[in-house]
Amino acid sequence: MSAEKSVKVGIVGGTGYTGVELLRMLTLHPNAKLTMITSRKEAGTRLDAMFPSLRGRCDLVFSDTATADLTQCDVVFYATPHGVAMTDAPKLTAAGVKIIDLAADFRFKDLAVFEQWYKLPHTCPDLAAKAAYGLVELNRDAIKSAQIVGNPGCYPTTMQLGYYPLLKAGIVDAGHLIADCASGVSGAGKKAEMDYLFTEAGDNFKAYGVSGHRHHPETQARLQDMTTDKVRLIFTPHLTPMIRGMHSTLYATLTGKGLSMTNDELQALFVNAYQGEAFIDVMPFGSMPDTRSTRGSNMLRIALHRPQGGDTIVVLVVQDNLVKGSAGAAVQCMNLMFGLPETAGLLTMPLSP
Amino acid sequence: MSAEKSVKVGIVGGTGYTGVELLRMLTLHPNAKLTMITSRKEAGTRLDAMFPSLRGRCDLVFSDTATADLTQCDVVFYATPHGVAMTDAPKLTAAGVKIIDLAADFRFKDLAVFEQWYKLPHTCPDLAAKAAYGLVELNRDAIKSAQIVGNPGCYPTTMQLGYYPLLKAGIVDAGHLIADCASGVSGAGKKAEMDYLFTEAGDNFKAYGVSGHRHHPETQARLQDMTTDKVRLIFTPHLTPMIRGMHSTLYATLTGKGLSMTNDELQALFVNAYQGEAFIDVMPFGSMPDTRSTRGSNMLRIALHRPQGGDTIVVLVVQDNLVKGSAGAAVQCMNLMFGLPETAGLLTMPLSP
Amino acid sequence: MSAEKSVKVGIVGGTGYTGVELLRMLTLHPNAKLTMITSRKEAGTRLDAMFPSLRGRCDLVFSDTATADLTQCDVVFYATPHGVAMTDAPKLTAAGVKIIDLAADFRFKDLAVFEQWYKLPHTCPDLAAKAAYGLVELNRDAIKSAQIVGNPGCYPTTMQLGYYPLLKAGIVDAGHLIADCASGVSGAGKKAEMDYLFTEAGDNFKAYGVSGHRHHPETQARLQDMTTDKVRLIFTPHLTPMIRGMHSTLYATLTGKGLSMTNDELQALFVNAYQGEAFIDVMPFGSMPDTRSTRGSNMLRIALHRPQGGDTIVVLVVQDNLVKGSAGAAVQCMNLMFGLPETAGLLTMPLSP
Amino acid sequence: MSAEKSVKVGIVGGTGYTGVELLRMLTLHPNAKLTMITSRKEAGTRLDAMFPSLRGRCDLVFSDTATADLTQCDVVFYATPHGVAMTDAPKLTAAGVKIIDLAADFRFKDLAVFEQWYKLPHTCPDLAAKAAYGLVELNRDAIKSAQIVGNPGCYPTTMQLGYYPLLKAGIVDAGHLIADCASGVSGAGKKAEMDYLFTEAGDNFKAYGVSGHRHHPETQARLQDMTTDKVRLIFTPHLTPMIRGMHSTLYATLTGKGLSMTNDELQALFVNAYQGEAFIDVMPFGSMPDTRSTRGSNMLRIALHRPQGGDTIVVLVVQDNLVKGSAGAAVQCMNLMFGLPETAGLLTMPLSP
Repeated sequence: MSAEKSVKVGIVGGTGYTGVELLRMLTLHPNAKLTMITSRKEAGTRLDAMFPSLRGRCDLVFSDTATADLTQCDVVFYATPHGVAMTDAPKLTAAGVKIIDLAADFRFKDLAVFEQWYKLPHTCPDLAAKAAYGLVELNRDAIKSAQIVGNPGCYPTTMQLGYYPLLKAGIVDAGHLIADCASGVSGAGKKAEMDYLFTEAGDNFKAYGVSGHRHHPETQARLQDMTTDKVRLIFTPHLTPMIRGMHSTLYATLTGKGLSMTNDELQALFVNAYQGEAFIDVMPFGSMPDTRSTRGSNMLRIALHRPQGGDTIVVLVVQDNLVKGSAGAAVQCMNLMFGLPETAGLLTMPLSP
Repeated sequence: MSAEKSVKVGIVGGTGYTGVELLRMLTLHPNAKLTMITSRKEAGTRLDAMFPSLRGRCDLVFSDTATADLTQCDVVFYATPHGVAMTDAPKLTAAGVKIIDLAADFRFKDLAVFEQWYKLPHTCPDLAAKAAYGLVELNRDAIKSAQIVGNPGCYPTTMQLGYYPLLKAGIVDAGHLIADCASGVSGAGKKAEMDYLFTEAGDNFKAYGVSGHRHHPETQARLQDMTTDKVRLIFTPHLTPMIRGMHSTLYATLTGKGLSMTNDELQALFVNAYQGEAFIDVMPFGSMPDTRSTRGSNMLRIALHRPQGGDTIVVLVVQDNLVKGSAGAAVQCMNLMFGLPETAGLLTMPLSP
Repeated sequence: MSAEKSVKVGIVGGTGYTGVELLRMLTLHPNAKLTMITSRKEAGTRLDAMFPSLRGRCDLVFSDTATADLTQCDVVFYATPHGVAMTDAPKLTAAGVKIIDLAADFRFKDLAVFEQWYKLPHTCPDLAAKAAYGLVELNRDAIKSAQIVGNPGCYPTTMQLGYYPLLKAGIVDAGHLIADCASGVSGAGKKAEMDYLFTEAGDNFKAYGVSGHRHHPETQARLQDMTTDKVRLIFTPHLTPMIRGMHSTLYATLTGKGLSMTNDELQALFVNAYQGEAFIDVMPFGSMPDTRSTRGSNMLRIALHRPQGGDTIVVLVVQDNLVKGSAGAAVQCMNLMFGLPETAGLLTMPLSP
Repeated sequence: MSAEKSVKVGIVGGTGYTGVELLRMLTLHPNAKLTMITSRKEAGTRLDAMFPSLRGRCDLVFSDTATADLTQCDVVFYATPHGVAMTDAPKLTAAGVKIIDLAADFRFKDLAVFEQWYKLPHTCPDLAAKAAYGLVELNRDAIKSAQIVGNPGCYPTTMQLGYYPLLKAGIVDAGHLIADCASGVSGAGKKAEMDYLFTEAGDNFKAYGVSGHRHHPETQARLQDMTTDKVRLIFTPHLTPMIRGMHSTLYATLTGKGLSMTNDELQALFVNAYQGEAFIDVMPFGSMPDTRSTRGSNMLRIALHRPQGGDTIVVLVVQDNLVKGSAGAAVQCMNLMFGLPETAGLLTMPLSP
């Protein structure tokens, strides 16, 4: 495609962390033109007054959500609370505008599950039925032709990509999957809540949502699509004192032919599954990826272990929760939806240290 | 016992983090008199020159390890690398001095396992055979009468206390235990190594020792003592960017009568197992303990979960790795060995925030 | 005095960080009996439900501020927003109860300054006139006999103790004092505000209140009391990504006889000024104290420098902002007001690392 | 110039933090071709084995410093300890290769000062005399035509850019400048030293080098070039628990016409001095820049304050110490030396949060 192609982009709700991440990436995107960004509370405010990191690089002013004409855009990203995108979707899609929702409105096939976990009636089930789930590596074709994409949750991205080759090959006990995950505090969003204060979350580690987290039903449903065996997932998220980064330690019990596979064969399953993927790095068997090796980048890294050569396989997955786990993945979807190179605007290197 | 009772205490190798923790606790201990502290490299140095936190509170000077007469002490703590305590043990025990080793020399019944993992021949198997394993809550009587105590590793403490009521009751599949643990950086000791730099360990999370960690054989052997079923433990430690604190998320599959037990019954198992323990806090079912609620204190907290009411039980355990996970547990042993109140010198409150 | 003496203590507003610090210290205080703690919002809640660090150590329940009868107490600490203590003071003092306010109500002699900076009319100027300023080392006698103590601000404590020997000796230019200070995030209190989120305050450093901070008028007035020269103080606070700790770097230009003083003579000024003080550590000339050497303790450390032997003297001061900078200093005042040993309940060692 | 222009770049000593930063920036630089990177210890190692953040983005292998033929390069960056660049400089410059030294070899006009502070005899005084000091905004023309550039120290960059407009205008007392600065831990480099461990540097703040730091003579000499008044600088660096970022709080006493200048006039001095600079952001008067607003970017931000309208002006300066304070500034110099757009490869947005 032509280097001059320029997608007109709107962002609704750009005052949170995924919003500013979209701005960071789209400002440097060779084929995107940031056209409009809206906020209910901040209409009229310059973006760089709210995010000093943008000073000198972004002249945009927040438009009023109520009055902004988003139909001028080619695509609109929703970096909003759950429920906003589905409200706008009928009008925008009717006007030919594409939608990428970073919230949960379009993540579920079974809307009853959505409604149970998000406590919202779904307002456009017909559009939800046609929306594509935005996990590029597992759903590339559907995304290319979708008008609406529901971007996956951050944890679900790591769990799906980590379990996929195993479930696909049918070599693990799908009924006893255990995902023990840790996220940096930015995963909670930019919310003034006590638990996320520096003084509360700093020098501290704890589990949360053990008995039920919204990313559990999302992941379980998507894992179920990968196999005919009954999937049962235990998912324990933890809060760890870092700003960005997500680390998932995934356990599965090898069964059947899996039990007799060598480490090389297990490794080959993953290498083959993600051959040619620009943003998945299958590390050598036995590696221990650290989250900071992905900080600020769209890369996700995977490494396999088989402790004591036993019947348990351990898959380690790391990503930046705000990039591959959210805004970066969303831009990756946009690239596909508009026929752009998949890596456009996404080649920023990880920041290390 | 009399309030005047005063145990003469020596510390060998007090330049690391467990050493300074012993100092912190023993300085305020009502029945301990810090008599001698030795260091190979720092002989002649005032302790408070190395640890400014001790200024104004501790006048001690490091003695030379080579020449210090430790037989003047009633008890000697070894806060040294592995292998030092066993070298001194024959002479000191012959002189009637008791030994509490914070390293691994006296943790193992099967010395072949010790030698395999610590790459050292054991020099006093006879003493090792008589040493008590210093996990007070599971081994109180043996410790009371022991002349040598091998203090448990930090991770093993959490795993044993977390799994004990389940294995004892015989209600879980001992062959598929998964312990997913995270430790603050002080767990690595005071060592000038690249991986533990602020710039490397900060804002970062990673697994380590996945294919083999020294605390694995120690724990597996001790868990095996709790049940006649064959124990197989998967143990994945992680490094998390905090100074102190350890969080273990322990998974087990309920079997047999365990499957039909209610949450209340499961909770009762733990409450009963640790009834009257001063340093174990069994929190209400479904709690999510955070590590900082134990910071600087000898308290260990446990909470149970049963996600989706399924067949997996999740036990969360937190402690301060340097206190209940090391120096505090060692002082607790000393109290028992000398007939002191078990909580003497150990009632410092957690530091929060 | 008798070991049995027991002061009945009340705390108003114990839900913030200074409140929980008071609890931490008073729980272990040999001569204090925590009798009542009140909260507007949390009446009926167990304290350890709000602060899990207190589990197993504190059975108290928050009383309702509106109905609690504080006149049963010997002393009441106010760990509240500014303005609460002065509302209660007339009634309590009439009932013979002593008051220690950790907020600003009783810090100012000139109430017009209080009213200007705290935007509150002072409701009991007569009591304010009789209140003692709670900086023990500079005001011990007044505190001993006071019925009301206004505890100093955290920054003001470091600035006054750091400048006092210099101003007293009349050897610096009082008109050009520069105090460049950094505080951990707990200094902002336990408030759910965006600026203090882990994600905002972490891995970040910034100045705040440069053009005006409430601790400036408080300090300037107290420094003015130390000299007949006109004092002019520049005070720049900074927020640094740590939980606790305060570091003040104080600059002054030597004048008159100060210019010809040797380093030893300058050092002697400080050593003599704080001779015998249990909680002030004058370190050797040229030392560089770190904040963590005071973490969790009531110790404040001071060190002097004279860069390039020029006419500028630099005084470094560190403390734990929540202890010597607030709750610890308040307990120190209580000890004096009730004839207890000044160090009672305050000998907890710093937590290091 | 042509978009195809491609500068062949070598890096000597790419195993430290400034080395990996150069790699991060040059990998994305449109006009640079990374040709060779050398290391004494790591010859033969793939770069991405040492820096996993480079996996998938960089195929380079460390060459042996002893045998690598750097004369193939157009420019060589020295990300080495002090003293290495000057050893290679005669041979490389004779071969027409340009040199950018990130260490101190070419920072000093007065080599006696270099030798005193760096304890090394200078081996090529003739080349040092012709080298340009790489502070682009103050020395652009000399850099354009230089064959050797000595990149400034990180602290000196902030101090020079912050004081320059004031000294140039002659409105402050040059004899009493006070610079109170804080740096993230990466400023110490990637060195396995005890002081920089997570457990030592975390949750801690302290001054260092108060009586003498190498950046003091460098800065004092450069400030002296800006004025005929005698300059005397007090410089106090502090270590703050963050990975990246530098914050300088600069104090100066207004004199002469400075005393009667309005805030607007003071602000105009800075705005005019840095008009058109791509990497200097003069923020509105009274702003409080935070370090993270520059994280990972080449931007430096400045803000002015005049507390209480008195005779002290306070200049706040922030930058990322590894970028504008080191590797980014070096690339900016390279761009100038090769006639490239000054911003080429340097437009990466700050990473926030």
